[in-house]
Amino acid sequence: MAHALVEYSDNLTDQGDIRGLLKKIAAQMCNSNGVFPTGGIRIRANRLSEYVIADGEDDYAFVNIVVQMGSGRPADFKKQFFDELFEIIKAHFAIIYASRYLAISLYVVEVNEQNSYKQNNIHAKFVSAMPPTKA
Amino acid sequence: MAHALVEYSDNLTDQGDIRGLLKKIAAQMCNSNGVFPTGGIRIRANRLSEYVIADGEDDYAFVNIVVQMGSGRPADFKKQFFDELFEIIKAHFAIIYASRYLAISLYVVEVNEQNSYKQNNIHAKFVSAMPPTKA
Amino acid sequence: MAHALVEYSDNLTDQGDIRGLLKKIAAQMCNSNGVFPTGGIRIRANRLSEYVIADGEDDYAFVNIVVQMGSGRPADFKKQFFDELFEIIKAHFAIIYASRYLAISLYVVEVNEQNSYKQNNIHAKFVSAMPPTKA
Repeated sequence: MAHALVEYSDNLTDQGDIRGLLKKIAAQMCNSNGVFPTGGIRIRANRLSEYVIADGEDDYAFVNIVVQMGSGRPADFKKQFFDELFEIIKAHFAIIYASRYLAISLYVVEVNEQNSYKQNNIHAKFVSAMPPTKA
Repeated sequence: MAHALVEYSDNLTDQGDIRGLLKKIAAQMCNSNGVFPTGGIRIRANRLSEYVIADGEDDYAFVNIVVQMGSGRPADFKKQFFDELFEIIKAHFAIIYASRYLAISLYVVEVNEQNSYKQNNIHAKFVSAMPPTKA
Repeated sequence: MAHALVEYSDNLTDQGDIRGLLKKIAAQMCNSNGVFPTGGIRIRANRLSEYVIADGEDDYAFVNIVVQMGSGRPADFKKQFFDELFEIIKAHFAIIYASRYLAISLYVVEVNEQNSYKQNNIHAKFVSAMPPTKA
């Protein structure tokens, strides 16, 4: 499984193309040779309209992305994957970043699957690309 | 204390009866013989309207539930409680699950109460059922 | 960096002055002698309209605040800072708390910065007050 939550300040709504960002994150996960099974990808955004950033005295913006996945993927894979993902994220916002105040952050969280429960019939659609033991 | 956050894709709004699901989760916690003091139960939902699930090419849906509680409850209790809770959750969505793509997940997170602060006058309403040392 | 998320039940919208609360949390962080660099402060709220609190039989309200920061700040500082912050939070809601059911909670979460990525041009505005190695 792989979850990602994109929190963003609503002053990015017009320029930020958040829908496009979600698609890029999902596409990167889909292209992971099955390390992130396609059926387990759930990328969503939460637009926030109440916030105070820094000293609150300017039109600051932020995007905060939290990726949550089961533990156990190889360290080498993770470093390369998330290094690349953050480059994609920075590229997505590059024009905005060059012209206004913006804080971009990405956190990677691994969870113990022993404390989780799942039922997911989306996997069946992608079963040929998925190891049978993945839930 | 027990918090639960139910994130769901808004394509479940009409059929998903999320309000009913929140009630069922709260009821299960209320019926825990005081392991989850009634006054500390806070179950909420966050409907998400921006998301990409799996390859984004179909009307996929997801529900992701995170229960957060203080650490220290017995392992046997936790296994039985959350096994049962997940059965309740699956039953809640069984008709939808039989007819469309849906990913259901439940994560159980324990937090160290030493890093928390609380003030809660709801407990007083249920004081007779609550051990006096629970905050 | 310092993130704070204020979740609140929407029955606090009229009386709760959540915008004022966000400003107070940000101000407290800004007044930390650089322990929380101003450019990294991101305080936001999420108003929730679907919830069941306690037994769901009364007009209960809740505010749940999660502060997330990089690990490594001194224990003494943290205790004093968050003790004071919770006093500010309680004072903010004191009138409401005296007249209705309300659960207030604050959780402090430290994250390993090794699993994070950042790009933030807000820091440059406050650079004179910021140690050069903070990102």
